[in-house]
Amino acid sequence: MSRRSLHQNAPAPAVLRARLDRAREVAAGTGLVIAPGSDLRYLLGQGGGSFERLTALVLPADGVPALVVPKLEGPGYADVPLAELGVEVLTWVDGDNAYALVADRLGRPERVAVSDFAPALHVLALRDALPAAEQVLAGPIVRELRMRKDATEIAELRAAGAAIDRVHARVPEFLRAGRTEAEVGADLAAAIVEEGHVVADFVIVGSGPNGASPHHDVSDRVIETGDVVVVDIGGPLDSGYNSDSTRTYAVGEPRDPDVAATYAVLQEAQQAAVTAVRPGVTAESIDRAAREVIEQAGFGQYFIHRTGHGIGLDVHEEPYVVAGNELVLEPGMAFSVEPGIYQPGRWGARIEDIVIVTDDGVESVNQRPHDLAVV
Amino acid sequence: MSRRSLHQNAPAPAVLRARLDRAREVAAGTGLVIAPGSDLRYLLGQGGGSFERLTALVLPADGVPALVVPKLEGPGYADVPLAELGVEVLTWVDGDNAYALVADRLGRPERVAVSDFAPALHVLALRDALPAAEQVLAGPIVRELRMRKDATEIAELRAAGAAIDRVHARVPEFLRAGRTEAEVGADLAAAIVEEGHVVADFVIVGSGPNGASPHHDVSDRVIETGDVVVVDIGGPLDSGYNSDSTRTYAVGEPRDPDVAATYAVLQEAQQAAVTAVRPGVTAESIDRAAREVIEQAGFGQYFIHRTGHGIGLDVHEEPYVVAGNELVLEPGMAFSVEPGIYQPGRWGARIEDIVIVTDDGVESVNQRPHDLAVV
Repeated sequence: MSRRSLHQNAPAPAVLRARLDRAREVAAGTGLVIAPGSDLRYLLGQGGGSFERLTALVLPADGVPALVVPKLEGPGYADVPLAELGVEVLTWVDGDNAYALVADRLGRPERVAVSDFAPALHVLALRDALPAAEQVLAGPIVRELRMRKDATEIAELRAAGAAIDRVHARVPEFLRAGRTEAEVGADLAAAIVEEGHVVADFVIVGSGPNGASPHHDVSDRVIETGDVVVVDIGGPLDSGYNSDSTRTYAVGEPRDPDVAATYAVLQEAQQAAVTAVRPGVTAESIDRAAREVIEQAGFGQYFIHRTGHGIGLDVHEEPYVVAGNELVLEPGMAFSVEPGIYQPGRWGARIEDIVIVTDDGVESVNQRPHDLAVV
Repeated sequence: MSRRSLHQNAPAPAVLRARLDRAREVAAGTGLVIAPGSDLRYLLGQGGGSFERLTALVLPADGVPALVVPKLEGPGYADVPLAELGVEVLTWVDGDNAYALVADRLGRPERVAVSDFAPALHVLALRDALPAAEQVLAGPIVRELRMRKDATEIAELRAAGAAIDRVHARVPEFLRAGRTEAEVGADLAAAIVEEGHVVADFVIVGSGPNGASPHHDVSDRVIETGDVVVVDIGGPLDSGYNSDSTRTYAVGEPRDPDVAATYAVLQEAQQAAVTAVRPGVTAESIDRAAREVIEQAGFGQYFIHRTGHGIGLDVHEEPYVVAGNELVLEPGMAFSVEPGIYQPGRWGARIEDIVIVTDDGVESVNQRPHDLAVV
């Protein structure tokens, strides 16, 4: 018997009700099957568990929405105002066909959209229960709602930004020559929780050559004087909204004489991208703003990832700040701006802030200085 | 930028190689697409991340296996002996069609099996990249390997059992009248890590009427003298193998005079089920052994879940100990035996051990006494 803890702090019923109505409006005739996870949390204020038994919020094009849930997991939704939201509860027990419950509730839709992160286990069983329906992803529907944050969500992202800023402010306590990345990482993980996160979702301490791998984690490498160190940290608050911030540190004066000039390019690129953010421009234009600065300085080959990702109830969500994404930015959209320069075998650097599109420009939820901080 | 930490402690290359060969043998012509998670960890010794970018181990019916991985996540697999395992690496960058890479490597299979917990995002994109192939679940293939534990895996399950036993031994330190379930749960979570787990994956403290909900978590209910309290705890070791054990406690003498007699029925039922475990009997016969004792005592309506679930790299995996599962038990199979009696509005009780089928009987990895422990 087991279940991950559920975190409370749900939006008001009226907010949830409006989200449910809007989801069906955007779905425009497509049946929606929302699995446990951030989509469910967005729509019901409760993300649920995600085990092998099917739980799903079913939003038919016509008819009454239903939460299909294993009977023994039903109490986990006791705090969700389901009646007020107009959502019926359909419980099932081991031996019942839960997929038939979903199919019956959906009616005979031509298309059924399933959550992007619904497991294949349920996706294929649902396909078999509704063989005539085309399966598509719910992501493009739900993102229409989720990528525009409302005032409450923006307040949570600001709180998350402030919390992770407090952790970065404490990095000089932890980051010293002679300690391993893993030791520093453990201290950071504890500080992330102490400063108000539910859990330390990720801790990257990339020292020296390890900093040149953007998704390095931590290792047993002993940090040396003169190292450049990438520290990328974050996690969810109790509300479910996430922080994610990167700063690059130097342990004493950098050993590599090229660091100062290269880092100045990165800082300029990150600033150029943040400055470019405002309503009416495309997501890819933000990527281009950062990339042009780095390419013009001759480091283009060392900037090997997109400039950013949306953030909210998921650490990675729409909108993605990447070449090819012609999405036009609107007030309330929130995403990371995190260019990096990675010199294989030598060192890497990245600066990452979470920004929110305002009515006429941009707000950053992270306030820590952008300079290379010598500790 | 973010990625969950990966835990090391991988099996020897020869063990992994044998698993890969066996997976293709069981697949018998079906192409296999293994997503990050416990299946990948079982086959490569590394579970990978699980974000929106596709990572997949591709095992074609004919041809060379490949790990399709985003270029920037490639370094996360540096410790996997891919060359020794005969697995090629196919990296891709944002803008490439990763699904086409998978399709090319698979050739033109009639059937493609995808991991049970692969997200819909990848399942539907892969369907579009291989429109002529029937999609099925990889679970039935991979479970043929994973549900029979080898000596190393059994050693890890024993270590996990011993670790969680040490936590149960400390319950009297934490469980007292006047404290909330959440306070006790926080202490238990810390003890789970202190006793050798990577993380406290789940902590259930179900006191008084909350114990009657099998998947109750913790709450702000203040524990009272006379309460019966269900404590169900577990988590993964560094190896990835999980613990999961439940004991039921009483805070002083139970208030409800029926507790002793009812609990004796539960204890007899759990013992009957454990005693029934041996090679050659069916999984459902173990469920029946527990259920018959509880039904004959008149409590059948209060035992509202299956008797157990397999355990290993996942907390819940095959074999499931449930009515209808005619799977014949074999040496090396590991699962929970956890009947419960839940009296709505009053209290609940559950006893859970992880057991392993031996050559001629059963071994329990949990050794704590089964009596109702008065604290």
